[in-house]
Amino acid sequence: MRISELSTASGVTIPTIKFYLRENLLPSGEATSANQARYDESHVKRLTLIRALLEIGGLSVAAARDVIDAVDNADLPLNQVFGIAQRAISGSNLSTNSASAESRARVASVLTERKWHVTDDNPGLAGAAKVLDRFSALGHPELIDLIDDYALAADIVARADLRVVGKQPNVAAMAETVVAGTVLGDAVFAALRRIAQEHVSSEMHPAPHPLSQAPASIPDRRKS
Amino acid sequence: MRISELSTASGVTIPTIKFYLRENLLPSGEATSANQARYDESHVKRLTLIRALLEIGGLSVAAARDVIDAVDNADLPLNQVFGIAQRAISGSNLSTNSASAESRARVASVLTERKWHVTDDNPGLAGAAKVLDRFSALGHPELIDLIDDYALAADIVARADLRVVGKQPNVAAMAETVVAGTVLGDAVFAALRRIAQEHVSSEMHPAPHPLSQAPASIPDRRKS
Repeated sequence: MRISELSTASGVTIPTIKFYLRENLLPSGEATSANQARYDESHVKRLTLIRALLEIGGLSVAAARDVIDAVDNADLPLNQVFGIAQRAISGSNLSTNSASAESRARVASVLTERKWHVTDDNPGLAGAAKVLDRFSALGHPELIDLIDDYALAADIVARADLRVVGKQPNVAAMAETVVAGTVLGDAVFAALRRIAQEHVSSEMHPAPHPLSQAPASIPDRRKS
Repeated sequence: MRISELSTASGVTIPTIKFYLRENLLPSGEATSANQARYDESHVKRLTLIRALLEIGGLSVAAARDVIDAVDNADLPLNQVFGIAQRAISGSNLSTNSASAESRARVASVLTERKWHVTDDNPGLAGAAKVLDRFSALGHPELIDLIDDYALAADIVARADLRVVGKQPNVAAMAETVVAGTVLGDAVFAALRRIAQEHVSSEMHPAPHPLSQAPASIPDRRKS
């Protein structure tokens, strides 16, 4: 198909497709003349992955390229693709400062409790510890102890993740599943958590749920 | 304290503090002269909440103001603060297009299975359905069935969330806990999921974990 047809099939505008080509996120099409190239279904699918990484995953173009390079590199062992995807995603939010020794120790206590064994540079270790620091800084240290129940839930989720990855027919498909599942899995879990919170909240306080009777706007406390 | 001392105590620069004041995220200090105002510990704490919402939660200034207005409005029932926080956070990522009827039905099946009862406008419903659509669009419909295990995990997390909220001494503290817990809870869960994924992955494939032997850079497939 031509670039205009690729645009229609993928819902991505031609200027954006050209940007992804320039940034090496999308492989070039097969040249049919000096100014034209032919694209196929693999380009449509790749555009969906790119948009998922950038728009749902919130990755930078450089981080998305790292992940896509890993997906395209069939020689890379699966665990390593996992690591690259994890780093790309964590890098966007959680890897600027270091966490306190106290919070790192609290995270380590969770690993001991759950008998989890991971390498020291797993990005989740610093990520979790930094959030615990924020709970303290906000004056809500009692939120820190949520981590024990969260870890139980994370174990359930990770086992489901790996079960699906293990059923893929080849390494490329496994790698793509890791990327899509890691990026989009956070979003679907967050959505389900919102649903569960409302359910549990109304179970505990069985009044009519206020979302259905919310005022048109929030009372305005601003002075001007 | 003066604005310079507030800056030191909070780690936020004076121009940024002035921006938050102009945007009504931070309440004015007590005026001591035409050009000076006095701030207190409540301002330090509020600055931490603002930064958590903007930097960790990824909220827009307008969405952060909605959440902060809700926290400051002690008359608002707790469930309603929950709803406002949920909408602010979901709005930043997941509320542009509508999801397919098929994905909405799949999410509804999860609610039936778990006996969850929520209002139709819970933002998690559309959010979850939209991610299921993305799984299909990416050519990985098998990821959709992850939702059943994810829902079990979300139930565990939500019960822990509500238990902590219920222990707060007053409505303002409850509201602040909901906000901090909702925004930061997603981040801590995602971090723990990364840790659990590596553990489960190495449990299933007990080779030395490749993160510890990763090459210095990813092989470059780019042409130019």
